[in-house]
Amino acid sequence: MTRAKRGTTGGEAPEPARLKPRLRVVRGEEVLLGPGMAELLDALQRTGSLRLAADEMGMSYMHAWQLVRTMNGAFREPLVTLERGGAARGGARLTERGAEVLALYQEMETGARRAAQGPWRRLRRLLS
Amino acid sequence: MTRAKRGTTGGEAPEPARLKPRLRVVRGEEVLLGPGMAELLDALQRTGSLRLAADEMGMSYMHAWQLVRTMNGAFREPLVTLERGGAARGGARLTERGAEVLALYQEMETGARRAAQGPWRRLRRLLS
Repeated sequence: MTRAKRGTTGGEAPEPARLKPRLRVVRGEEVLLGPGMAELLDALQRTGSLRLAADEMGMSYMHAWQLVRTMNGAFREPLVTLERGGAARGGARLTERGAEVLALYQEMETGARRAAQGPWRRLRRLLS
Repeated sequence: MTRAKRGTTGGEAPEPARLKPRLRVVRGEEVLLGPGMAELLDALQRTGSLRLAADEMGMSYMHAWQLVRTMNGAFREPLVTLERGGAARGGARLTERGAEVLALYQEMETGARRAAQGPWRRLRRLLS
């Protein structure tokens, strides 16, 4: 299935430019926490299921599971607990620490976006 | 040549985790301005040469030239003027608009980093 290209079907206005802030926590080359991982934590919090969260993000179950492993290994306490039989059933729960980390990440993101608004508005006017 | 793994040669302290904010201006899938482009503008401003700027960034001359084309096409006025014979000689100059765009980008970046500091300090303490 193909999606129609935006703005190619007679519309006059070009797609507006957007500012995308991406925050990554890295150690050396390893990403310990980033936008995809934060989105995964958020989806886990809502769905309580690694499989549903992975599906929602268009990500393989195995990839989601690896991201959880990376995050759990990066923090002093696990952010996510997987239920026994989780590999098959995919039950997953955010720990208190996981919810705290997600909230802090979202706070960084919101703050960064807000701080960039002033210069972004001026920059946007210079775009064609 | 292999590099020794960090922290495996007797050192006690692991490499510290860092926060990497990356700001991108996008339209659809196209990146109009991002960290690499901003760094290129900065290097052009300092060196006055597309070749020197590309070398400094470990980037091919052709790639640097394409980034300049993309940026020049994305803004109402060109950000960089290439000298005649520039393909061979690589003389390049930031326009007034180019300097303005670079300053606005750096302002967004600095603001975003500063805004994230509070939650980042708290998040950092939760890392192992």
